Amino acid sequence: MANPVQTLQGMRDWLPGRSRLRAWIISRIRENFERSGFEPVETPALEYAETLKGKYGEEADKLIYAFTDRGGREVGLRYDLTVPLARVVASHPDLSRPFKRYHIAPVWRAERPQRGRYREFTQCDIDVVGVPGELADADVLFTVMACLVDLGLPGFVVRLNDRRLLQAIVARLGIAPNRALGLFRALDKLDKIGTAGVRAELMERGFSGAEIDGLFGFLIPRGDPSIILPELGRTLGGREDAAAAIASLGRLVSALAGLGIASDRLQVDPTLVRGLDYYTGCIYEVTVVEPAIGSLVGGGRYDDLIGIFTGRPTPATGGALGLDRIIDVIEALGLAPAGMQGPVAPVQMTIFSEETLATSLRVAGNLRRAGIACDLAIAGGRLSNQLRDAARRGVRWSVIAGPDEIEQGKLLVRDMVSGEQTALSEADAGEFLRGQL
Amino acid sequence: MANPVQTLQGMRDWLPGRSRLRAWIISRIRENFERSGFEPVETPALEYAETLKGKYGEEADKLIYAFTDRGGREVGLRYDLTVPLARVVASHPDLSRPFKRYHIAPVWRAERPQRGRYREFTQCDIDVVGVPGELADADVLFTVMACLVDLGLPGFVVRLNDRRLLQAIVARLGIAPNRALGLFRALDKLDKIGTAGVRAELMERGFSGAEIDGLFGFLIPRGDPSIILPELGRTLGGREDAAAAIASLGRLVSALAGLGIASDRLQVDPTLVRGLDYYTGCIYEVTVVEPAIGSLVGGGRYDDLIGIFTGRPTPATGGALGLDRIIDVIEALGLAPAGMQGPVAPVQMTIFSEETLATSLRVAGNLRRAGIACDLAIAGGRLSNQLRDAARRGVRWSVIAGPDEIEQGKLLVRDMVSGEQTALSEADAGEFLRGQL
Repeated sequence: MANPVQTLQGMRDWLPGRSRLRAWIISRIRENFERSGFEPVETPALEYAETLKGKYGEEADKLIYAFTDRGGREVGLRYDLTVPLARVVASHPDLSRPFKRYHIAPVWRAERPQRGRYREFTQCDIDVVGVPGELADADVLFTVMACLVDLGLPGFVVRLNDRRLLQAIVARLGIAPNRALGLFRALDKLDKIGTAGVRAELMERGFSGAEIDGLFGFLIPRGDPSIILPELGRTLGGREDAAAAIASLGRLVSALAGLGIASDRLQVDPTLVRGLDYYTGCIYEVTVVEPAIGSLVGGGRYDDLIGIFTGRPTPATGGALGLDRIIDVIEALGLAPAGMQGPVAPVQMTIFSEETLATSLRVAGNLRRAGIACDLAIAGGRLSNQLRDAARRGVRWSVIAGPDEIEQGKLLVRDMVSGEQTALSEADAGEFLRGQL
Repeated sequence: MANPVQTLQGMRDWLPGRSRLRAWIISRIRENFERSGFEPVETPALEYAETLKGKYGEEADKLIYAFTDRGGREVGLRYDLTVPLARVVASHPDLSRPFKRYHIAPVWRAERPQRGRYREFTQCDIDVVGVPGELADADVLFTVMACLVDLGLPGFVVRLNDRRLLQAIVARLGIAPNRALGLFRALDKLDKIGTAGVRAELMERGFSGAEIDGLFGFLIPRGDPSIILPELGRTLGGREDAAAAIASLGRLVSALAGLGIASDRLQVDPTLVRGLDYYTGCIYEVTVVEPAIGSLVGGGRYDDLIGIFTGRPTPATGGALGLDRIIDVIEALGLAPAGMQGPVAPVQMTIFSEETLATSLRVAGNLRRAGIACDLAIAGGRLSNQLRDAARRGVRWSVIAGPDEIEQGKLLVRDMVSGEQTALSEADAGEFLRGQL
């Protein structure tokens, strides 16, 4: 019986060119995270299933890869990096506050695969634990936006809302709080199923026509915070809860402006819900106009989640960059830096013959130790074939040590683009190649 | 019911200091892999269970985390990175040969946790696909050794053997080839259970006293290749299969010497087996004298594994650095570079008051955009507390923008070690901090 050679659906292999692009993007993101003072933390892929379940919402829970291990424990692959962070904070009470951490790692969701949606995908998370104010939210949102700017993504927009504003609208409509999550879950599908779809789902969930009409009356189209926030103030500001949420969003927008975020990057979107149950304050998503691929970044404040583990109120706020979608966008828009498709080693040491092998090995070893990435023609064969193969793979320089060169104490350095060959001593060849790279 | 806050047994959280050390080690390993011309490839954590099973040996198969997913598929978490590579090669027949790839990623094994043995651990693999000769083996072994040298590991030794030599001994003893795997599995435990333990297990597996005595007669103690290889030649060299294996080891040792590997790093060890079933040629492990933690590197040639997937013979050879054990050794020997325990951001922007907040935000945003890692005192509070907290965390420089400084168009840059404060313009402060870092 033949062994399957394909990956599981929704999971992917990363071959050299794309894997290098992926590593480059991660290094840019990591640098921006560290520039903002976020510290790395890593956690296991597997957690007790109980750790994961009951945090994300009824539909999300079904997507957790959960199973019983050989020791009879109920375990699951992490669904995101936020719940593991909450567990870490609870299990390490000595961590200093504010605790600012980043974590770049794969997560797994048994979703129906589609464009920009995978069953294994990598999240790049930053979170601040222990600070209740909008400065913490702004620190996170500034940093994820700095990543996108640094990666050269044009035309992205942050859609911003606050769960407390949605809750104030629900309260204003006289809807009991225990029905709010159902309403949020329906509204969360607005981008996918449109207003009519959301209305239908709300009817199904038992909301009355008056409630639904009332809801959509408050959900004005998204736009510039300086326009939308005052408008929300006029329609809802009489309520203390709504006024507090609107003021909080105002402070967040103002802090972001202070940090140098261009105001045209920000929109307040009263319809934004974010699927996960654990948010309690500001929420946001970052989208690009092209390609239509869903949100690249999501985040918000979740002041109650960590308390589930610690038993004490612990304010927290965080955002996650979706690495896979960012890669998709960078590839679709042709934003990848040059050179990702060529070989990692721009130099190849050829092997002329069995008699000259020792020289080739010595030179390759020395170049590598000198920090010059140098492949070795381990497959052997005729020199002309080694050079042809190197040219095909995009090698920039080949080094040749034939009997004549060895007798003269020289190496030939061949420019694989021009075909020009220069005889240099081993030391000079190393100097030359280092200068070229 | 309280949620569990601990990790699963044998799995660990990496908090900031250790996570930074881990990232630094990975970056050193990655650089050495790329210097030798190995290209990055990544694969999913989950594979079809059928892909994984039947490749490692009967006991190893039991350690695979396998389960049925919601779609009824039998799946498993990868047990190593070699079998996924074999699948990748089969599913991408257009990959050029030789195909040299590296892969740094976690693997999972449901082993009994003990010192240096975890259920989730990270392997750093390099493999060469498509080249049968010893130069490919040498290219791999040189590169993993270069990593250990670059990380500053003292006193490591490569133990080298060849499965074909073990098979020649088995044949010389008149043991049928189908009994060889059982013999190898018992012998593989030599380090753990000693000669007496292996003898007992071989008896249990049905080997006769004469067979066992004969076996140990050929298994001379390990030592310098220039001594051990001729000795093996004297006792076994009359057999063609043994002579070929001894000659192959000789060519590998010679190629490593050519690449500049010191000969005292290499020992030929006729008792070395390596647990996995798929090896067919040279095999090796790298150990350190202190601490006693098992092997840091394992590898060898496996010319038949990829053919299981491709249906065509495909020579391959590779080695894996065990990241977790390397970290354990670096920590135990105090080899970690300085500065891993301090904060990632050496600079903190303080917040004097609500009135000066806008200046603090602007300066923090500008420093970050200029590439200077700068934390922001988002928790607020009195300036003296912000400074005390920064000092406690090891922040090197604090920047202060109080009303007086703002009026003079200056910032105070405070040296957190000496306590000295210097008034500088924002531009000069940026220049100064950049120069310090």
